[in-house]
Amino acid sequence: MIPAVDGSAESALDPVVPQEADPRTALSGGVAGAAALEPVLRVVLDALAAGAAERGGPLPAGRPAQLAAGVARALSQPGGDDALHRLTTLLAYGSADPADPFCAAHLHCPPLAVAVAADLAVSALNPSQDSWDQAPAATSLETLLLEELARLVGYPAEAAGVLTSGGTESNLMGLTLARDRVMGEATGQRIETGGIPRNAPRPRIFASAVAHFSVQRAAALLGLGEDAVVPVPVDDGLRMDAGALARALDEAAGRGELPVAVVATAGTTDTGAIDPLPACAALAREHGAWLHVDAAYGGGALLSDRLAPLVAGIELADSVSLDWHKLGWQPAAAGVFLVRRAETYASLARRAAYLNPADDERAGYPSLLGLSLRTTRRADAFKIAVTLRTLGRSGLGRLVDACHDLALAGAEAVRAHPRLELHADPVLTTFLFRYMPADPERADRVNAGLRRRLLREGRAVVGRTELPGDGPGRVRLKLTLLNPHTTPEQVERLIHTVAEEGAAEEELP
Amino acid sequence: MIPAVDGSAESALDPVVPQEADPRTALSGGVAGAAALEPVLRVVLDALAAGAAERGGPLPAGRPAQLAAGVARALSQPGGDDALHRLTTLLAYGSADPADPFCAAHLHCPPLAVAVAADLAVSALNPSQDSWDQAPAATSLETLLLEELARLVGYPAEAAGVLTSGGTESNLMGLTLARDRVMGEATGQRIETGGIPRNAPRPRIFASAVAHFSVQRAAALLGLGEDAVVPVPVDDGLRMDAGALARALDEAAGRGELPVAVVATAGTTDTGAIDPLPACAALAREHGAWLHVDAAYGGGALLSDRLAPLVAGIELADSVSLDWHKLGWQPAAAGVFLVRRAETYASLARRAAYLNPADDERAGYPSLLGLSLRTTRRADAFKIAVTLRTLGRSGLGRLVDACHDLALAGAEAVRAHPRLELHADPVLTTFLFRYMPADPERADRVNAGLRRRLLREGRAVVGRTELPGDGPGRVRLKLTLLNPHTTPEQVERLIHTVAEEGAAEEELP
Repeated sequence: MIPAVDGSAESALDPVVPQEADPRTALSGGVAGAAALEPVLRVVLDALAAGAAERGGPLPAGRPAQLAAGVARALSQPGGDDALHRLTTLLAYGSADPADPFCAAHLHCPPLAVAVAADLAVSALNPSQDSWDQAPAATSLETLLLEELARLVGYPAEAAGVLTSGGTESNLMGLTLARDRVMGEATGQRIETGGIPRNAPRPRIFASAVAHFSVQRAAALLGLGEDAVVPVPVDDGLRMDAGALARALDEAAGRGELPVAVVATAGTTDTGAIDPLPACAALAREHGAWLHVDAAYGGGALLSDRLAPLVAGIELADSVSLDWHKLGWQPAAAGVFLVRRAETYASLARRAAYLNPADDERAGYPSLLGLSLRTTRRADAFKIAVTLRTLGRSGLGRLVDACHDLALAGAEAVRAHPRLELHADPVLTTFLFRYMPADPERADRVNAGLRRRLLREGRAVVGRTELPGDGPGRVRLKLTLLNPHTTPEQVERLIHTVAEEGAAEEELP
Repeated sequence: MIPAVDGSAESALDPVVPQEADPRTALSGGVAGAAALEPVLRVVLDALAAGAAERGGPLPAGRPAQLAAGVARALSQPGGDDALHRLTTLLAYGSADPADPFCAAHLHCPPLAVAVAADLAVSALNPSQDSWDQAPAATSLETLLLEELARLVGYPAEAAGVLTSGGTESNLMGLTLARDRVMGEATGQRIETGGIPRNAPRPRIFASAVAHFSVQRAAALLGLGEDAVVPVPVDDGLRMDAGALARALDEAAGRGELPVAVVATAGTTDTGAIDPLPACAALAREHGAWLHVDAAYGGGALLSDRLAPLVAGIELADSVSLDWHKLGWQPAAAGVFLVRRAETYASLARRAAYLNPADDERAGYPSLLGLSLRTTRRADAFKIAVTLRTLGRSGLGRLVDACHDLALAGAEAVRAHPRLELHADPVLTTFLFRYMPADPERADRVNAGLRRRLLREGRAVVGRTELPGDGPGRVRLKLTLLNPHTTPEQVERLIHTVAEEGAAEEELP
């Protein structure tokens, strides 16, 4: 169905003919791999530069449908040798580039060049972490990196973990282990083999009302249902209220329900709020629940001497999520899942005859298969290891602090502006605010509209979210500062640009 | 805990000072990104060449513990500017390189240089597919690529899908949608919100006895339990026996159980066996079960005019898994999940205020969020699109055919060897065989041992698996031919090398 682009006859090539003659089928590996990569990488660098120059800003101007039509046109052109240049230029042109100071919406970091280069090595060699004989060095490297990250969290030597696709997968893993362990102990049955027992008490997961939606997503996948998640009220700082958690746990116990897990968030997506980790840990322990700490964002604080105290208590968690593609400047994906005690991984252990036969393990061939929900798995640990060794924790900590400083400066600029309203002081590197139109009833529409106007004009990518609760007046704009090279002056200009667009949007009927 | 490697004081950098001055913190994006990447990519290419030359074969010689000690030493050395070169050299040296003709164990393909180059652009720009404003062009591109792949499968226009981390995630998605739809209809309840109803009939999943272990893995995650999977007997070709499937479905119906899904495999990992897809589809339909086709491997046949007839009927599936990091020559990950009808995605739809607010969607901003189990998601579609446009279906089909030819030639060489025993003729690009020692009772130990000997000596990476069933005599070696540049003569030499090592292993007491 996909048309042949080369027009040649469909006869099978004689595989004895050396196919290296055709650069389009050259491989990235082997002794000739580097030489084969060189010309195509040159094409990519040229295209990246051309596309970025053509874009000339944080994102391409225009409506989504216009850009989509351009992509469709590019894909429908005849292919061949220039496809790499043409499509890469288009991808670069059509990116929301987190390296642009005016692209500051999401936990979507601009990667470090050194991390991207390391990731190229991974693509070229293509190790897969599901068996040693697909990834000899990468297997050891991941294990050692995870030991290092476990120490960073404050975990003991018996910790274990795995690289993941991100916080959503890590949260799923934490809740899977929680379900299998807590429900298994409560019912005396193996959940992973027999499924959720019909006579089990109703399972509940406790998470703050502003926890990431992946908690509900995981509950749905695990067969517990989204309704199993008890949304615990938050305080003024959008942190889980420890008293409210205690009450929710007690009420569940009173109803004969099973507290499977408490999910504490260390750095919510919108405001960076950090739940009271020691109190959450004490309550989880008291009720026999697993404590999972979603530190996908706030885990970056561990790199900074200034911010690390904010996540004290994280070492009490049974499992944690960390995302190095957020405050870690890695290209996606660079998720990390850690458990405090390797033994709690039991329900995920798997034996596959073709991947980790028992006699191989006895002969000293390690297997990471049972540590992951995936089978084929890219060596995402490598870029993190290279980055850590290049910059050190202190070097990365300075980047974290720089972004924190930018958030503080941005919040100051919002506070100083007569038409902007700050939601709260930044905790990490993000903050919420809004433009206040003369008619406050129009605030939601004006803020949502001004953000789309910024996108359409290709001027800026700012975030937009809603405060928890019901009813109007909850729409807020968001800046997420993840570019350590941005200056406070640029953040201030971005904020003034937002206010200008707010004024223009407000003029609309 | 991670020591600072640069020895500088821990004071926060003044973020006004242009940090671009330090190449270690240069970013890959923005107008300066290509220039920042150039020197570090040069380092990587040099290190890839040096590491491959130092390895000088398909994998490094030695025992895993020796290599692990080397990795530990490398990681413990002082870091800084040379970390990228040092660790990349080590990764290349310590790889099992699928571009080496003697590395032919797993569905672990040698990537095309053009695909690796495209993947570099993705790392550098870091689009994330969870919202349009993190990936404007990449959002359209993924949608259009999936339409093209849906046509390749033979799906109608109302198909939908998403890129995944691989077959394991795709199989999980298929079974998630199956559970939510079939069990939801049977009980009149929403499984994703309320969880698995206690009064639901016992859910069953039917898969062949040699289906991938990720089917059981998915059943465990979904709260159904591994025991929910009914292993359907296979015929002599290790294909699901349609008669046995019919009986298993009838028996389950007789017990009042709920047939949630039939999982048909198009290309088993070990032998490439393809279940009878039309018969599976008819039986699934008759019993109201979802049909998921795991074509992670066999989906590659769709690229080849010669092999495509083998997977006829795939278009009848409710969902399919395809892996372009198998017969598609992409670096991991390049998984694809497709459903025949977009409406069946309903239970995964999600609304997150910060990612896909309703008024943005009304204003024409598309969202892929509800199509994936993940949130942050790398733009893995891009490398596939570039590869397809560079080579065309026919160009890729020739690579598939070349690997198929190699498997046929390899099987011939095994058949011609007096001490080797072929399991069966290849279906796709893989086949099983074993060395036959004089004492047949020692066959398992000799074959397992000779494979580890090949690994230790750094001579070859061949697969090892077990035939289905119980008891001894089931260990088999496996060649998976995924390198289209390998010659039949090299495959023959590899097979003779295996036989030599078998003879040496047999001599051991």
